Amino acid sequence: MEENLSAFLTEKEKIISDELVQKVKSLSIPSRLKDSMLYSIKAGGKRLRPLLMIASCESFHGTYQQVLSVSLALEMVHTYSLIHDDLPAMDDDHYRRGQPTNHRVFDEATAILAGDALLTYSFEAITDDPQLTNEQKVYIIKRLAKASGPKGMVAGQSLDMAAENREITLTELEEIHDLKTGELLTFALEIGAYIGGASIKQIAEIRKYAYYVGLIFQVQDDILDVSGDPEKIGKPIGSDESNMKSTYPKLLGLDGAIKKKEEYVDLAEAALIKADVKTNILKDFVQYLSLRDA
Amino acid sequence: MEENLSAFLTEKEKIISDELVQKVKSLSIPSRLKDSMLYSIKAGGKRLRPLLMIASCESFHGTYQQVLSVSLALEMVHTYSLIHDDLPAMDDDHYRRGQPTNHRVFDEATAILAGDALLTYSFEAITDDPQLTNEQKVYIIKRLAKASGPKGMVAGQSLDMAAENREITLTELEEIHDLKTGELLTFALEIGAYIGGASIKQIAEIRKYAYYVGLIFQVQDDILDVSGDPEKIGKPIGSDESNMKSTYPKLLGLDGAIKKKEEYVDLAEAALIKADVKTNILKDFVQYLSLRDA
Repeated sequence: MEENLSAFLTEKEKIISDELVQKVKSLSIPSRLKDSMLYSIKAGGKRLRPLLMIASCESFHGTYQQVLSVSLALEMVHTYSLIHDDLPAMDDDHYRRGQPTNHRVFDEATAILAGDALLTYSFEAITDDPQLTNEQKVYIIKRLAKASGPKGMVAGQSLDMAAENREITLTELEEIHDLKTGELLTFALEIGAYIGGASIKQIAEIRKYAYYVGLIFQVQDDILDVSGDPEKIGKPIGSDESNMKSTYPKLLGLDGAIKKKEEYVDLAEAALIKADVKTNILKDFVQYLSLRDA
Repeated sequence: MEENLSAFLTEKEKIISDELVQKVKSLSIPSRLKDSMLYSIKAGGKRLRPLLMIASCESFHGTYQQVLSVSLALEMVHTYSLIHDDLPAMDDDHYRRGQPTNHRVFDEATAILAGDALLTYSFEAITDDPQLTNEQKVYIIKRLAKASGPKGMVAGQSLDMAAENREITLTELEEIHDLKTGELLTFALEIGAYIGGASIKQIAEIRKYAYYVGLIFQVQDDILDVSGDPEKIGKPIGSDESNMKSTYPKLLGLDGAIKKKEEYVDLAEAALIKADVKTNILKDFVQYLSLRDA
Protein backbone atom coordinates (compact mmCIF):
# COMPACT_ATOMS: atom_id res chain seq x y z
CA MET A 1 0.00 0.00 0.00
CA GLU A 2 1.17 3.53 -0.72
CA GLU A 3 2.72 5.10 2.36
CA ASN A 4 0.52 8.20 2.16
CA LEU A 5 -2.66 6.17 2.04
CA SER A 6 -1.51 3.95 4.87
CA ALA A 7 -0.88 6.97 7.11
CA PHE A 8 -4.23 8.48 6.08
CA LEU A 9 -6.13 5.29 6.88
CA THR A 10 -4.50 4.80 10.27
CA GLU A 11 -4.98 8.38 11.39
CA LYS A 12 -8.52 8.89 10.15
CA GLU A 13 -9.82 5.47 11.14
CA LYS A 14 -8.94 6.25 14.74
CA ILE A 15 -10.66 9.63 14.66
CA ILE A 16 -13.79 8.13 13.09
CA SER A 17 -14.02 5.23 15.55
CA ASP A 18 -13.37 7.39 18.61
CA GLU A 19 -15.92 10.02 17.58
CA LEU A 20 -18.54 7.43 16.68
CA VAL A 21 -18.31 5.70 20.04
CA GLN A 22 -18.35 9.06 21.80
CA LYS A 23 -21.44 10.16 19.88
CA VAL A 24 -23.47 7.08 20.73
CA LYS A 25 -22.20 6.96 24.31
CA SER A 26 -23.37 10.50 24.95
CA LEU A 27 -27.01 9.75 24.05
CA SER A 28 -29.49 9.79 26.96
CA ILE A 29 -31.39 6.65 26.03
CA PRO A 30 -32.37 3.29 27.62
CA SER A 31 -29.21 1.41 28.57
CA ARG A 32 -29.96 -1.88 26.83
CA LEU A 33 -30.70 -0.06 23.59
CA LYS A 34 -27.50 1.97 23.92
CA ASP A 35 -25.40 -1.12 24.73
CA SER A 36 -26.73 -2.86 21.64
CA MET A 37 -26.03 0.16 19.40
CA LEU A 38 -22.55 0.53 20.89
CA TYR A 39 -21.76 -3.16 20.48
CA SER A 40 -22.13 -2.99 16.71
CA ILE A 41 -20.60 0.47 16.44
CA LYS A 42 -17.55 -0.77 18.32
CA ALA A 43 -17.32 -3.98 16.27
CA GLY A 44 -15.54 -1.74 13.85
CA GLY A 45 -14.60 -2.92 10.45
CA LYS A 46 -12.69 -0.87 7.94
CA ARG A 47 -14.79 2.35 8.24
CA LEU A 48 -14.52 2.36 4.46
CA ARG A 49 -17.45 4.70 3.82
CA PRO A 50 -16.37 7.52 6.16
CA LEU A 51 -12.78 7.15 4.93
CA LEU A 52 -13.88 7.48 1.30
CA MET A 53 -15.96 10.54 2.16
CA ILE A 54 -13.02 12.22 3.88
CA ALA A 55 -10.62 11.25 1.08
CA SER A 56 -13.00 12.67 -1.50
CA CYS A 57 -13.42 15.92 0.44
CA GLU A 58 -9.63 16.32 0.76
CA SER A 59 -9.20 15.55 -2.95
CA PHE A 60 -10.75 18.95 -3.69
CA HIS A 61 -10.46 21.88 -1.33
CA GLY A 62 -11.98 20.47 1.84
CA THR A 63 -10.76 19.31 5.23
CA TYR A 64 -11.83 16.19 7.10
CA GLN A 65 -13.42 18.28 9.83
CA GLN A 66 -16.00 19.55 7.35
CA VAL A 67 -17.42 16.09 6.65
CA LEU A 68 -16.70 14.32 9.91
CA SER A 69 -20.27 14.51 11.30
CA VAL A 70 -21.84 13.43 8.03
CA SER A 71 -19.34 10.58 7.71
CA LEU A 72 -20.32 9.36 11.19
CA ALA A 73 -24.01 9.49 10.25
CA LEU A 74 -23.18 7.42 7.17
CA GLU A 75 -21.34 4.82 9.25
CA MET A 76 -24.40 4.60 11.54
CA VAL A 77 -26.60 3.85 8.52
CA HIS A 78 -24.11 1.22 7.35
CA THR A 79 -24.04 -0.33 10.84
CA TYR A 80 -27.85 -0.43 11.01
CA SER A 81 -27.91 -2.27 7.68
CA LEU A 82 -25.46 -4.90 8.94
CA ILE A 83 -27.49 -5.50 12.13
CA HIS A 84 -30.72 -5.99 10.17
CA ASP A 85 -29.07 -8.06 7.40
CA ASP A 86 -27.64 -10.46 9.99
CA LEU A 87 -31.05 -11.19 11.59
CA PRO A 88 -32.34 -14.78 11.52
CA ALA A 89 -35.16 -13.78 9.16
CA MET A 90 -32.61 -12.24 6.76
CA ASP A 91 -29.14 -13.75 6.23
CA ASP A 92 -29.14 -15.52 9.63
CA ASP A 93 -25.47 -14.82 10.28
CA HIS A 94 -23.97 -15.94 13.58
CA TYR A 95 -20.70 -14.05 13.34
CA ARG A 96 -19.56 -10.77 11.84
CA ARG A 97 -15.89 -9.82 11.82
CA GLY A 98 -15.26 -12.80 14.07
CA GLN A 99 -17.65 -11.63 16.79
CA PRO A 100 -21.17 -12.92 17.56
CA THR A 101 -23.82 -10.92 15.70
CA ASN A 102 -25.89 -8.33 17.56
CA HIS A 103 -29.06 -10.41 17.92
CA ARG A 104 -27.05 -13.28 19.42
CA VAL A 105 -25.42 -11.11 22.07
CA PHE A 106 -28.65 -9.25 22.86
CA ASP A 107 -31.89 -10.56 21.34
CA GLU A 108 -33.73 -10.15 18.08
CA ALA A 109 -36.07 -7.43 19.35
CA THR A 110 -33.18 -5.38 20.69
CA ALA A 111 -31.20 -5.85 17.45
CA ILE A 112 -34.15 -4.68 15.35
CA LEU A 113 -34.58 -1.63 17.60
CA ALA A 114 -30.84 -0.85 17.65
CA GLY A 115 -30.89 -0.84 13.84
CA ASP A 116 -33.98 1.36 13.73
CA ALA A 117 -32.37 3.70 16.27
CA LEU A 118 -29.08 4.07 14.36
CA LEU A 119 -30.90 4.77 11.10
CA THR A 120 -33.20 7.37 12.62
CA TYR A 121 -30.52 9.04 14.71
CA SER A 122 -28.26 9.44 11.67
CA PHE A 123 -30.72 11.95 10.21
CA GLU A 124 -30.96 13.86 13.48
CA ALA A 125 -27.14 14.00 13.64
CA ILE A 126 -26.97 15.65 10.22
CA THR A 127 -29.48 18.32 11.24
CA ASP A 128 -27.33 19.04 14.31
CA ASP A 129 -24.08 19.71 12.40
CA PRO A 130 -23.25 23.39 13.04
CA GLN A 131 -20.86 23.56 10.07
CA LEU A 132 -23.45 22.91 7.37
CA THR A 133 -25.93 25.37 5.91
CA ASN A 134 -29.61 24.40 5.78
CA GLU A 135 -29.30 23.98 2.02
CA GLN A 136 -26.43 21.51 2.48
CA LYS A 137 -28.27 19.61 5.21
CA VAL A 138 -31.38 19.16 3.05
CA TYR A 139 -29.31 18.02 0.06
CA ILE A 140 -27.30 15.56 2.15
CA ILE A 141 -30.39 14.12 3.88
CA LYS A 142 -32.18 13.74 0.56
CA ARG A 143 -29.23 11.88 -0.95
CA LEU A 144 -28.68 9.71 2.14
CA ALA A 145 -32.35 8.72 2.35
CA LYS A 146 -32.42 7.92 -1.36
CA ALA A 147 -29.18 5.91 -1.25
CA SER A 148 -30.21 3.89 1.80
CA GLY A 149 -33.98 3.56 1.34
CA PRO A 150 -36.36 1.65 -0.95
CA LYS A 151 -34.74 3.07 -4.12
CA GLY A 152 -31.25 2.15 -2.90
CA MET A 153 -29.83 -0.15 -0.24
CA VAL A 154 -33.17 -1.59 0.94
CA ALA A 155 -34.07 -2.40 -2.68
CA GLY A 156 -30.70 -4.15 -3.02
CA GLN A 157 -31.25 -6.30 0.04
CA SER A 158 -34.78 -7.14 -1.12
CA LEU A 159 -33.53 -8.21 -4.59
CA ASP A 160 -30.59 -10.07 -3.07
CA MET A 161 -32.89 -12.18 -0.92
CA ALA A 162 -35.11 -12.91 -3.89
CA ALA A 163 -32.03 -13.96 -5.92
CA GLU A 164 -30.82 -16.58 -3.45
CA ASN A 165 -31.01 -20.15 -4.67
CA ARG A 166 -31.46 -19.18 -8.30
CA GLU A 167 -29.10 -18.43 -11.20
CA ILE A 168 -28.82 -14.76 -12.10
CA THR A 169 -27.03 -12.96 -14.92
CA LEU A 170 -23.99 -10.72 -14.53
CA THR A 171 -26.22 -7.70 -15.22
CA GLU A 172 -28.62 -8.68 -12.43
CA LEU A 173 -25.69 -9.37 -10.09
CA GLU A 174 -24.22 -5.94 -10.72
CA GLU A 175 -27.57 -4.20 -10.28
CA ILE A 176 -28.00 -5.87 -6.88
CA HIS A 177 -24.47 -4.92 -5.78
CA ASP A 178 -24.90 -1.39 -7.02
CA LEU A 179 -28.07 -0.95 -4.97
CA LYS A 180 -26.93 -2.90 -1.92
CA THR A 181 -23.45 -1.44 -1.47
CA GLY A 182 -22.74 0.87 -4.41
CA GLU A 183 -25.33 3.50 -3.55
CA LEU A 184 -23.86 4.22 -0.10
CA LEU A 185 -20.30 4.25 -1.48
CA THR A 186 -21.45 6.73 -4.11
CA PHE A 187 -23.10 8.82 -1.42
CA ALA A 188 -19.83 8.85 0.54
CA LEU A 189 -17.71 9.99 -2.39
CA GLU A 190 -20.26 12.39 -3.86
CA ILE A 191 -20.96 14.21 -0.61
CA GLY A 192 -17.23 14.40 0.18
CA ALA A 193 -16.67 16.11 -3.18
CA TYR A 194 -19.73 18.33 -2.75
CA ILE A 195 -18.63 19.62 0.65
CA GLY A 196 -15.03 19.80 -0.56
CA GLY A 197 -16.07 22.34 -3.18
CA ALA A 198 -16.02 20.21 -6.35
CA SER A 199 -17.82 21.56 -9.42
CA ILE A 200 -20.93 19.83 -10.82
CA LYS A 201 -18.80 18.34 -13.60
CA GLN A 202 -16.25 17.05 -11.10
CA ILE A 203 -19.01 15.54 -8.95
CA ALA A 204 -20.36 13.71 -11.99
CA GLU A 205 -16.91 12.13 -12.56
CA ILE A 206 -16.61 11.22 -8.90
CA ARG A 207 -19.97 9.44 -9.17
CA LYS A 208 -18.57 7.37 -12.06
CA TYR A 209 -15.44 6.64 -10.04
CA ALA A 210 -17.67 5.59 -7.13
CA TYR A 211 -19.65 3.21 -9.31
CA TYR A 212 -16.50 1.34 -10.35
CA VAL A 213 -15.07 1.42 -6.82
CA GLY A 214 -18.23 -0.35 -5.64
CA LEU A 215 -17.83 -3.06 -8.27
CA ILE A 216 -14.09 -3.46 -7.58
CA PHE A 217 -14.89 -3.89 -3.91
CA GLN A 218 -17.44 -6.58 -4.70
CA VAL A 219 -15.36 -8.50 -7.27
CA GLN A 220 -12.49 -8.63 -4.78
CA ASP A 221 -14.89 -9.84 -2.05
CA ASP A 222 -15.97 -12.69 -4.32
CA ILE A 223 -12.35 -13.48 -5.31
CA LEU A 224 -11.27 -13.61 -1.65
CA ASP A 225 -14.14 -15.97 -0.93
CA VAL A 226 -12.63 -18.57 -3.27
CA SER A 227 -8.91 -17.83 -2.99
CA GLY A 228 -8.34 -15.80 0.19
CA ASP A 229 -6.81 -16.71 3.52
CA PRO A 230 -9.64 -17.82 5.85
CA GLU A 231 -7.77 -16.41 8.87
CA LYS A 232 -7.62 -12.97 7.27
CA ILE A 233 -11.12 -12.79 5.76
CA GLY A 234 -12.69 -14.17 8.96
CA LYS A 235 -14.83 -16.84 7.32
CA PRO A 236 -14.24 -20.22 5.66
CA ILE A 237 -13.29 -20.40 1.98
CA GLY A 238 -16.23 -21.11 -0.33
CA SER A 239 -18.99 -19.85 1.96
CA ASP A 240 -20.70 -18.04 -0.94
CA GLU A 241 -20.80 -21.33 -2.85
CA SER A 242 -22.40 -23.15 0.06
CA ASN A 243 -24.86 -20.25 0.51
CA MET A 244 -25.85 -20.65 -3.16
CA LYS A 245 -24.88 -17.06 -3.87
CA SER A 246 -24.17 -15.81 -7.38
CA THR A 247 -20.62 -14.44 -7.58
CA TYR A 248 -18.17 -13.14 -10.20
CA PRO A 249 -15.92 -16.23 -10.13
CA LYS A 250 -18.98 -18.44 -10.54
CA LEU A 251 -20.24 -16.46 -13.53
CA LEU A 252 -16.85 -15.65 -15.14
CA GLY A 253 -14.32 -18.08 -13.63
CA LEU A 254 -11.54 -16.87 -11.34
CA ASP A 255 -9.39 -15.54 -14.21
CA GLY A 256 -12.39 -13.85 -15.76
CA ALA A 257 -13.22 -12.19 -12.44
CA ILE A 258 -9.65 -10.89 -12.06
CA LYS A 259 -9.74 -9.52 -15.61
CA LYS A 260 -13.09 -7.86 -14.96
CA LYS A 261 -11.68 -6.23 -11.85
CA GLU A 262 -8.72 -4.85 -13.80
CA GLU A 263 -11.10 -3.34 -16.36
CA TYR A 264 -12.96 -1.59 -13.55
CA VAL A 265 -9.69 -0.31 -12.05
CA ASP A 266 -8.87 1.31 -15.41
CA LEU A 267 -12.33 2.86 -15.65
CA ALA A 268 -12.17 4.20 -12.08
CA GLU A 269 -8.76 5.76 -12.73
CA ALA A 270 -9.98 7.31 -15.99
CA ALA A 271 -12.90 8.97 -14.18
CA LEU A 272 -10.49 10.27 -11.57
CA ILE A 273 -8.28 11.94 -14.17
CA LYS A 274 -11.35 13.70 -15.58
CA ALA A 275 -12.37 14.77 -12.06
CA ASP A 276 -9.06 16.63 -11.86
CA VAL A 277 -8.40 15.80 -8.22
CA LYS A 278 -5.51 17.51 -6.47
CA THR A 279 -4.07 14.51 -4.58
CA ASN A 280 -3.32 10.83 -5.27
CA ILE A 281 -5.36 9.54 -2.40
CA LEU A 282 -8.40 8.31 -4.33
CA LYS A 283 -6.11 6.67 -6.90
CA ASP A 284 -4.25 4.85 -4.13
CA PHE A 285 -7.63 3.82 -2.69
CA VAL A 286 -8.48 1.96 -5.89
CA GLN A 287 -5.28 -0.06 -5.70
CA TYR A 288 -5.84 -0.73 -2.02
CA LEU A 289 -9.39 -2.00 -2.56
CA SER A 290 -8.43 -4.02 -5.60
CA LEU A 291 -5.50 -5.79 -3.95
CA ARG A 292 -6.70 -6.09 -0.35
CA ASP A 293 -6.42 -9.54 1.25
CA ALA A 294 -9.11 -9.03 3.91
CA MET B 1 -69.28 13.68 17.96
CA GLU B 2 -69.47 17.36 16.95
CA GLU B 3 -70.75 17.72 13.41
CA ASN B 4 -67.82 19.91 12.32
CA LEU B 5 -65.24 17.41 13.53
CA SER B 6 -67.09 14.53 11.94
CA ALA B 7 -67.09 16.28 8.54
CA PHE B 8 -63.43 17.21 8.99
CA LEU B 9 -62.42 13.62 9.81
CA THR B 10 -64.34 12.10 6.90
CA GLU B 11 -63.05 14.57 4.35
CA LYS B 12 -59.41 14.68 5.41
CA GLU B 13 -59.08 10.96 6.14
CA LYS B 14 -59.97 10.24 2.52
CA ILE B 15 -57.45 12.76 1.19
CA ILE B 16 -54.70 11.38 3.43
CA SER B 17 -55.36 7.74 2.54
CA ASP B 18 -55.63 8.39 -1.20
CA GLU B 19 -52.45 10.47 -1.29
CA LEU B 20 -50.51 7.99 0.83
CA VAL B 21 -51.37 5.06 -1.43
CA GLN B 22 -50.61 7.16 -4.51
CA LYS B 23 -47.23 8.19 -3.09
CA VAL B 24 -46.09 4.63 -2.35
CA LYS B 25 -47.57 3.26 -5.59
CA SER B 26 -45.57 5.75 -7.65
CA LEU B 27 -42.19 4.57 -6.30
CA SER B 28 -39.96 2.70 -8.77
CA ILE B 29 -38.87 -0.07 -6.42
CA PRO B 30 -38.86 -3.91 -6.29
CA SER B 31 -42.45 -5.16 -6.51
CA ARG B 32 -42.47 -7.39 -3.43
CA LEU B 33 -41.08 -4.57 -1.30
CA LYS B 34 -43.68 -2.18 -2.69
CA ASP B 35 -46.53 -4.66 -2.17
CA SER B 36 -45.52 -5.11 1.45
CA MET B 37 -45.29 -1.36 2.07
CA LEU B 38 -48.66 -0.81 0.35
CA TYR B 39 -50.32 -3.60 2.32
CA SER B 40 -49.68 -1.88 5.63
CA ILE B 41 -50.27 1.61 4.24
CA LYS B 42 -53.67 0.47 2.94
CA ALA B 43 -54.56 -1.34 6.18
CA GLY B 44 -55.53 2.13 7.24
CA GLY B 45 -56.57 2.86 10.75
CA LYS B 46 -57.71 6.22 11.97
CA ARG B 47 -54.91 8.31 10.40
CA LEU B 48 -54.92 10.06 13.75
CA ARG B 49 -51.46 11.63 13.46
CA PRO B 50 -51.94 13.28 10.05
CA LEU B 51 -55.42 14.42 11.11
CA LEU B 52 -54.05 16.04 14.27
CA MET B 53 -51.32 17.77 12.27
CA ILE B 54 -53.84 19.18 9.81
CA ALA B 55 -56.24 20.20 12.61
CA SER B 56 -53.41 21.96 14.41
CA CYS B 57 -52.31 23.78 11.27
CA GLU B 58 -55.87 24.93 10.57
CA SER B 59 -56.25 26.05 14.20
CA PHE B 60 -53.86 28.89 13.44
CA HIS B 61 -53.55 30.46 10.02
CA GLY B 62 -52.63 27.44 7.90
CA THR B 63 -54.32 25.24 5.33
CA TYR B 64 -54.19 21.46 5.11
CA GLN B 65 -52.29 21.63 1.82
CA GLN B 66 -49.32 23.18 3.63
CA VAL B 67 -48.79 20.15 5.88
CA LEU B 68 -50.13 17.36 3.71
CA SER B 69 -46.72 16.02 2.58
CA VAL B 70 -45.28 16.14 6.09
CA SER B 71 -48.39 14.46 7.48
CA LEU B 72 -47.97 11.62 4.98
CA ALA B 73 -44.31 11.23 5.98
CA LEU B 74 -45.45 11.03 9.59
CA GLU B 75 -48.01 8.32 8.79
CA MET B 76 -45.25 6.35 7.03
CA VAL B 77 -43.14 6.49 10.19
CA HIS B 78 -46.14 5.38 12.27
CA THR B 79 -46.82 2.51 9.82
CA TYR B 80 -43.17 1.38 9.94
CA SER B 81 -43.37 1.26 13.74
CA LEU B 82 -46.49 -0.93 13.63
CA ILE B 83 -44.88 -3.38 11.17
CA HIS B 84 -41.76 -3.75 13.33
CA ASP B 85 -43.71 -3.87 16.62
CA ASP B 86 -45.87 -6.73 15.29
CA LEU B 87 -42.85 -8.92 14.38
CA PRO B 88 -42.52 -12.31 16.12
CA ALA B 89 -39.40 -11.11 17.97
CA MET B 90 -41.31 -8.06 19.27
CA ASP B 91 -45.03 -8.24 20.20
CA ASP B 92 -45.67 -11.28 17.94
CA ASP B 93 -49.08 -10.04 16.82
CA HIS B 94 -51.02 -12.09 14.29
CA TYR B 95 -53.67 -9.53 13.47
CA ARG B 96 -53.85 -5.76 13.29
CA ARG B 97 -57.15 -4.01 12.65
CA GLY B 98 -58.68 -7.42 11.94
CA GLN B 99 -56.22 -8.23 9.14
CA PRO B 100 -53.19 -10.55 9.23
CA THR B 101 -50.02 -8.68 10.15
CA ASN B 102 -47.48 -7.81 7.46
CA HIS B 103 -44.97 -10.56 8.25
CA ARG B 104 -47.71 -13.19 8.07
CA VAL B 105 -48.90 -12.09 4.62
CA PHE B 106 -45.35 -11.64 3.29
CA ASP B 107 -42.48 -12.93 5.42
CA GLU B 108 -40.39 -11.58 8.28
CA ALA B 109 -37.53 -10.40 6.08
CA THR B 110 -39.87 -8.49 3.79
CA ALA B 111 -41.70 -6.97 6.76
CA ILE B 112 -38.43 -5.77 8.31
CA LEU B 113 -37.38 -4.25 4.98
CA ALA B 114 -40.79 -2.66 4.36
CA GLY B 115 -40.52 -0.97 7.76
CA ASP B 116 -36.96 0.19 7.07
CA ALA B 117 -38.08 1.47 3.68
CA LEU B 118 -41.04 3.46 5.02
CA LEU B 119 -38.91 5.05 7.73
CA THR B 120 -36.12 6.04 5.36
CA TYR B 121 -38.41 7.21 2.58
CA SER B 122 -40.31 9.47 5.00
CA PHE B 123 -37.21 11.67 5.33
CA GLU B 124 -36.69 11.81 1.57
CA ALA B 125 -40.35 12.81 1.13
CA ILE B 126 -39.89 15.79 3.45
CA THR B 127 -36.84 17.00 1.50
CA ASP B 128 -38.95 16.81 -1.70
CA ASP B 129 -41.78 19.04 -0.47
CA PRO B 130 -41.69 22.13 -2.72
CA GLN B 131 -43.77 24.20 -0.28
CA LEU B 132 -41.27 24.18 2.56
CA THR B 133 -38.16 26.31 2.95
CA ASN B 134 -34.85 24.61 3.71
CA GLU B 135 -35.03 25.99 7.24
CA GLN B 136 -38.47 24.41 7.74
CA LYS B 137 -37.32 21.10 6.26
CA VAL B 138 -34.31 20.89 8.58
CA TYR B 139 -36.41 21.75 11.63
CA ILE B 140 -39.11 19.21 10.73
CA ILE B 141 -36.58 16.43 10.00
CA LYS B 142 -34.76 17.12 13.26
CA ARG B 143 -37.99 16.93 15.25
CA LEU B 144 -39.26 13.84 13.41
CA ALA B 145 -35.97 11.96 13.90
CA LYS B 146 -35.89 12.90 17.56
CA ALA B 147 -39.53 11.94 18.17
CA SER B 148 -39.24 8.60 16.40
CA GLY B 149 -35.65 7.56 17.19
CA PRO B 150 -33.71 6.34 20.23
CA LYS B 151 -34.71 9.37 22.33
CA GLY B 152 -38.38 8.91 21.43
CA MET B 153 -40.50 6.13 20.00
CA VAL B 154 -37.72 3.52 19.77
CA ALA B 155 -36.83 4.20 23.43
CA GLY B 156 -40.50 3.71 24.31
CA GLN B 157 -40.71 0.35 22.54
CA SER B 158 -37.45 -0.73 24.17
CA LEU B 159 -38.69 0.20 27.67
CA ASP B 160 -42.11 -1.33 26.96
CA MET B 161 -40.56 -4.69 26.12
CA ALA B 162 -38.40 -4.55 29.25
CA ALA B 163 -41.52 -3.76 31.34
CA GLU B 164 -43.50 -6.82 30.24
CA ASN B 165 -44.13 -9.40 32.94
CA ARG B 166 -43.22 -7.05 35.77
CA GLU B 167 -45.08 -4.51 37.90
CA ILE B 168 -44.40 -0.89 37.03
CA THR B 169 -45.51 2.36 38.65
CA LEU B 170 -47.91 4.88 37.14
CA THR B 171 -44.94 7.21 36.53
CA GLU B 172 -43.06 4.53 34.60
CA LEU B 173 -46.20 3.63 32.67
CA GLU B 174 -46.73 7.23 31.61
CA GLU B 175 -43.08 7.67 30.62
CA ILE B 176 -43.31 4.64 28.35
CA HIS B 177 -46.54 5.85 26.76
CA ASP B 178 -45.17 9.33 26.30
CA LEU B 179 -42.12 7.98 24.46
CA LYS B 180 -43.88 5.25 22.54
CA THR B 181 -46.91 7.18 21.28
CA GLY B 182 -46.84 10.64 22.84
CA GLU B 183 -43.71 11.86 21.04
CA LEU B 184 -45.16 11.32 17.56
CA LEU B 185 -48.50 12.87 18.57
CA THR B 186 -46.62 15.88 19.90
CA PHE B 187 -44.63 16.07 16.65
CA ALA B 188 -47.92 16.05 14.70
CA LEU B 189 -49.49 18.86 16.69
CA GLU B 190 -46.35 20.94 17.08
CA ILE B 191 -45.40 20.88 13.40
CA GLY B 192 -48.99 21.63 12.40
CA ALA B 193 -48.90 24.73 14.61
CA TYR B 194 -45.40 25.68 13.41
CA ILE B 195 -46.35 25.56 9.73
CA GLY B 196 -49.70 27.16 10.53
CA GLY B 197 -47.89 30.24 11.81
CA ALA B 198 -48.29 29.83 15.59
CA SER B 199 -46.00 31.88 17.84
CA ILE B 200 -43.34 30.24 20.03
CA LYS B 201 -45.61 30.74 23.04
CA GLN B 202 -48.56 29.17 21.24
CA ILE B 203 -46.42 26.21 20.14
CA ALA B 204 -45.37 25.65 23.77
CA GLU B 205 -49.06 25.43 24.78
CA ILE B 206 -49.82 23.09 21.88
CA ARG B 207 -47.01 20.84 23.12
CA LYS B 208 -48.70 20.69 26.55
CA TYR B 209 -52.04 19.97 24.88
CA ALA B 210 -50.33 17.20 22.88
CA TYR B 211 -48.88 15.63 26.01
CA TYR B 212 -52.34 15.28 27.58
CA VAL B 213 -53.93 14.15 24.32
CA GLY B 214 -51.40 11.31 24.21
CA LEU B 215 -52.28 10.26 27.75
CA ILE B 216 -56.04 10.54 27.12
CA PHE B 217 -55.60 8.34 24.06
CA GLN B 218 -53.77 5.74 26.12
CA VAL B 219 -56.10 5.75 29.15
CA GLN B 220 -59.07 5.26 26.82
CA ASP B 221 -57.23 2.40 25.07
CA ASP B 222 -56.77 0.70 28.42
CA ILE B 223 -60.38 1.38 29.45
CA LEU B 224 -61.69 -0.10 26.19
CA ASP B 225 -59.56 -3.17 26.76
CA VAL B 226 -61.51 -3.98 29.93
CA SER B 227 -64.95 -2.53 29.14
CA GLY B 228 -65.18 -2.07 25.36
CA ASP B 229 -67.10 -3.95 22.71
CA PRO B 230 -64.79 -6.66 21.31
CA GLU B 231 -66.41 -6.33 17.88
CA LYS B 232 -65.60 -2.63 17.75
CA ILE B 233 -62.10 -2.69 19.22
CA GLY B 234 -61.13 -5.69 17.06
CA LYS B 235 -59.62 -7.78 19.85
CA PRO B 236 -60.94 -9.80 22.81
CA ILE B 237 -61.66 -8.05 26.12
CA GLY B 238 -58.85 -8.39 28.66
CA SER B 239 -56.03 -9.02 26.21
CA ASP B 240 -53.75 -6.60 28.09
CA GLU B 241 -54.36 -8.62 31.26
CA SER B 242 -53.44 -11.88 29.57
CA ASN B 243 -50.38 -10.21 28.01
CA MET B 244 -49.29 -9.17 31.52
CA LYS B 245 -49.29 -5.51 30.51
CA SER B 246 -49.44 -2.71 33.03
CA THR B 247 -52.51 -0.54 32.40
CA TYR B 248 -54.37 2.37 34.00
CA PRO B 249 -57.33 0.23 35.20
CA LYS B 250 -54.90 -2.25 36.70
CA LEU B 251 -53.01 0.47 38.56
CA LEU B 252 -55.98 2.73 39.45
CA GLY B 253 -59.10 0.61 39.04
CA LEU B 254 -61.66 1.34 36.29
CA ASP B 255 -63.21 4.31 38.14
CA GLY B 256 -59.77 5.70 38.94
CA ALA B 257 -58.78 5.44 35.28
CA ILE B 258 -61.91 7.29 34.16
CA LYS B 259 -61.26 10.02 36.73
CA LYS B 260 -57.65 10.33 35.58
CA LYS B 261 -58.79 10.68 32.00
CA GLU B 262 -61.17 13.48 32.96
CA GLU B 263 -58.34 15.31 34.71
CA TYR B 264 -56.29 15.10 31.53
CA VAL B 265 -59.20 16.36 29.44
CA ASP B 266 -59.39 19.45 31.67
CA LEU B 267 -55.64 20.02 31.39
CA ALA B 268 -55.68 19.62 27.59
CA GLU B 269 -58.52 22.11 27.29
CA ALA B 270 -56.77 24.58 29.57
CA ALA B 271 -53.64 24.47 27.38
CA LEU B 272 -55.80 25.03 24.33
CA ILE B 273 -57.33 28.17 25.79
CA LYS B 274 -53.85 29.54 26.45
CA ALA B 275 -52.80 28.65 22.89
CA ASP B 276 -55.58 30.98 21.70
CA VAL B 277 -56.63 28.81 18.76
CA LYS B 278 -59.12 30.23 16.29
CA THR B 279 -61.37 27.17 15.84
CA ASN B 280 -62.99 24.49 18.05
CA ILE B 281 -61.52 21.59 16.18
CA LEU B 282 -58.76 20.64 18.63
CA LYS B 283 -61.22 20.95 21.52
CA ASP B 284 -63.66 18.62 19.75
CA PHE B 285 -60.75 16.26 19.11
CA VAL B 286 -60.18 15.86 22.85
CA GLN B 287 -63.79 14.85 23.40
CA TYR B 288 -63.67 12.50 20.44
CA LEU B 289 -60.51 10.75 21.70
CA SER B 290 -61.77 10.63 25.26
CA LEU B 291 -65.14 9.09 24.40
CA ARG B 292 -64.28 6.92 21.39
CA ASP B 293 -65.51 3.32 21.48
CA ALA B 294 -62.96 1.91 19.03
